[in-house]
Amino acid sequence: MHTKILLTLALAASSVLASDLAMDAKNAGLKPIPSSTSELLKLIDNPKNPITPKKAELGKKLYFDPRLSKSGFISCNSCHNLSEGGDDGISAAIGHRWTANPHHLNSPTVYNSVFFSSQFWDGRDPHLEAQAQGPIQAAPEMAATPDHVLSVVTSIPQYVDEFKGAYGDDVKITFEKVADTIATFERTLVTPSAFDDFLNGNDNALNKTQKDGLKTFIDKGCTTCHNGVALGGEMNAFNITGIYKFQNVGDFKGDKNGMVKVPTLRNITQTAPYFHNGQIWELKDAIKEMGRIQLGTDISDKEAASIEEFLKALEGRKQDIVIPQLPVSTSKTPRPNIN
Amino acid sequence: MHTKILLTLALAASSVLASDLAMDAKNAGLKPIPSSTSELLKLIDNPKNPITPKKAELGKKLYFDPRLSKSGFISCNSCHNLSEGGDDGISAAIGHRWTANPHHLNSPTVYNSVFFSSQFWDGRDPHLEAQAQGPIQAAPEMAATPDHVLSVVTSIPQYVDEFKGAYGDDVKITFEKVADTIATFERTLVTPSAFDDFLNGNDNALNKTQKDGLKTFIDKGCTTCHNGVALGGEMNAFNITGIYKFQNVGDFKGDKNGMVKVPTLRNITQTAPYFHNGQIWELKDAIKEMGRIQLGTDISDKEAASIEEFLKALEGRKQDIVIPQLPVSTSKTPRPNIN
Repeated sequence: MHTKILLTLALAASSVLASDLAMDAKNAGLKPIPSSTSELLKLIDNPKNPITPKKAELGKKLYFDPRLSKSGFISCNSCHNLSEGGDDGISAAIGHRWTANPHHLNSPTVYNSVFFSSQFWDGRDPHLEAQAQGPIQAAPEMAATPDHVLSVVTSIPQYVDEFKGAYGDDVKITFEKVADTIATFERTLVTPSAFDDFLNGNDNALNKTQKDGLKTFIDKGCTTCHNGVALGGEMNAFNITGIYKFQNVGDFKGDKNGMVKVPTLRNITQTAPYFHNGQIWELKDAIKEMGRIQLGTDISDKEAASIEEFLKALEGRKQDIVIPQLPVSTSKTPRPNIN
Repeated sequence: MHTKILLTLALAASSVLASDLAMDAKNAGLKPIPSSTSELLKLIDNPKNPITPKKAELGKKLYFDPRLSKSGFISCNSCHNLSEGGDDGISAAIGHRWTANPHHLNSPTVYNSVFFSSQFWDGRDPHLEAQAQGPIQAAPEMAATPDHVLSVVTSIPQYVDEFKGAYGDDVKITFEKVADTIATFERTLVTPSAFDDFLNGNDNALNKTQKDGLKTFIDKGCTTCHNGVALGGEMNAFNITGIYKFQNVGDFKGDKNGMVKVPTLRNITQTAPYFHNGQIWELKDAIKEMGRIQLGTDISDKEAASIEEFLKALEGRKQDIVIPQLPVSTSKTPRPNIN
């Protein structure tokens, strides 16, 4: 009986400790993906481009459609591959004509990008709607003109019908609307994880090792930059020039202040290689490097391993995404041009 | 009453006619995808590499995994895109380093390829298991060595576990076994259509226009080459050299007799451009061209349009394929090499 009481007390204490840790995490600026759908919708929706099932479904088709690219070979999913943690696993992105990104920039994940306050490594756009227009047009990515995209979409009756279904019969299909529709799909790509369950009140969602890791993560100051729902996604008060391993490989200049966006840590175990330059392949090395150059502190192998255990708890539950069957081209559809 | 009897007789006659047409189609060598699962399984299974759900599921992951390629950017699905009728919609396939197929060969569809008696345009392999080894290694496609593929797979614990689950704990993972597993997935990619429903006894599965088209298709002799379950997939008794529009663009020589494989007509409306050389974009033009150079007969615009209506009835019902979540690389996984 005595043992039983002790055990009960111990469990209660453990529970209190866990709650304290969740409170510490929140105080450090970490936020969960809400477990309630209505709360989540408030967070991911764009009043100027509201999410609807028809728009998201059409956006999925466009996201997977290589015909939006000049070559007909590259879709959004080529570099932001939903099977591979939402990116491509390559150091610098490649695209049209096998061109490596001239700034030697790594493809960021699309999963949870809806939670970023800044899109692109230089943070030049706040919204996914604007972001989606970029890679489609970029010469080393999909290399398409807005006219090409518009010609493809409007030449395919099923796409026209689906735009009408999504926006109303009087819809004016524009390049911007195509991008908006892709963004709507992307807004739905959120991946709640064990960490969210923990912050949302389930003390047992993280195991002891992961809780220790979270504590180390907070204690070391990682939350200075990796905070919010995305654990990142904002511009970083850090100048990227001239720092070993983190310095630019290409001619990337960061934003006007020479700053680079903090990447999300969600699904980070699935999105190597790391940093805007894709120069680090091992998560442990990335953790230690960040400590050294960002926090000016030494992160020991043991601490890095502990943090890595926490980061595993950020592996999110992916929705089941059925591959779309794309509507067929017509004689009016621009032919692919691989040159 | 008299009218009613006439109507009944007319309906009966129509039904008999439809049945006659189905019989004509069968007599011309056309065969349906069986509606019974056990009959279908007999047709698609390989006794030397039996289909099991675990193998097919693992095969799906491998099919979608770009890490099997040298660059880490190209998967089987890049050129045999299950969203695009099972091919890429490009005239000549492109692959590693954006190299166009040196023989200027068009990517054939993977859907229903299990029904082909010959794989590749020169028909050099009878089975998908052998076929799957080709594009992975081909320099202008995935450009990987068998060692690379084996290193990728064996460096990823989840893949090793899934091979054990699929083949038993004593499995010896080899490059050939990886290809066998991909082939198992491909064997499941069959797409029954309205035409199959018709041949399987549902007289109303084809509308009047489609039935007329089928009749034209048979009358014109298209079934000479386009027969069997795949409506193609066998070597063609036709020499490809020197024929306008159908002649080689690259240095493709066909098989040892200069013959080229007859492509399947299933989902043909979704797999433009046409012919081994990808030189014709409009189905109507392809139909007329085939009449001229293969059958030595003129197919009128009206007849071509009628045949095209029948071909639409070969658009198959695609399974819902949920995109796989690929297991994560480890420090032992070979890094992508885009050069």
